[in-house]
Amino acid sequence: MARLVVMYRTPKDAVAFDKYYFETHVPIARKIPGLRKYEVSQGAVATPAGPSGFHLIATLHFDDLAAVQRAFASPEGQAAAADVQTFASGGVDMFFFDSREV
Amino acid sequence: MARLVVMYRTPKDAVAFDKYYFETHVPIARKIPGLRKYEVSQGAVATPAGPSGFHLIATLHFDDLAAVQRAFASPEGQAAAADVQTFASGGVDMFFFDSREV
Repeated sequence: MARLVVMYRTPKDAVAFDKYYFETHVPIARKIPGLRKYEVSQGAVATPAGPSGFHLIATLHFDDLAAVQRAFASPEGQAAAADVQTFASGGVDMFFFDSREV
Repeated sequence: MARLVVMYRTPKDAVAFDKYYFETHVPIARKIPGLRKYEVSQGAVATPAGPSGFHLIATLHFDDLAAVQRAFASPEGQAAAADVQTFASGGVDMFFFDSREV
């Protein structure tokens, strides 16, 4: 399995962010080909020392890294990436990697 | 479900890091009470723009945030946290949050 982790830094308006994210962005991102599972953080993203500066972390599951690459290259993936830029007012970090259980 | 995401920045010696991580740290961390699943990145952690600066991302699964708090407070959790400080020579970021599927 591979993972795409999308980490949204605290936005200017968290209420507007959440409304847009769940009503508009999630339906767009769910169309990405090869997406097997889509998880989001619920409530605060914390660290052992306190607040994290991140508002929401999304984890998208794919079969493998080739599927992640195909997703980025697809029209649906490009639409989702372009949409991120419209609402991620605090900035966003994205990471992808192969994953295995230990 | 709740997640504890541990993001290790690129260490001074990646080979020594990996040896210690898998031979010593994983067995220590696996003893943390309430741990349901333990996933690690395999190979490079990438971003859409290229290398990420992170060497390894671990995702630990717990039933809920209360279980994460109990894990941090447990002797086994404290041993794992203390052990991290011995090998995370590049630095480490930790995040925990409730998680749901969308």
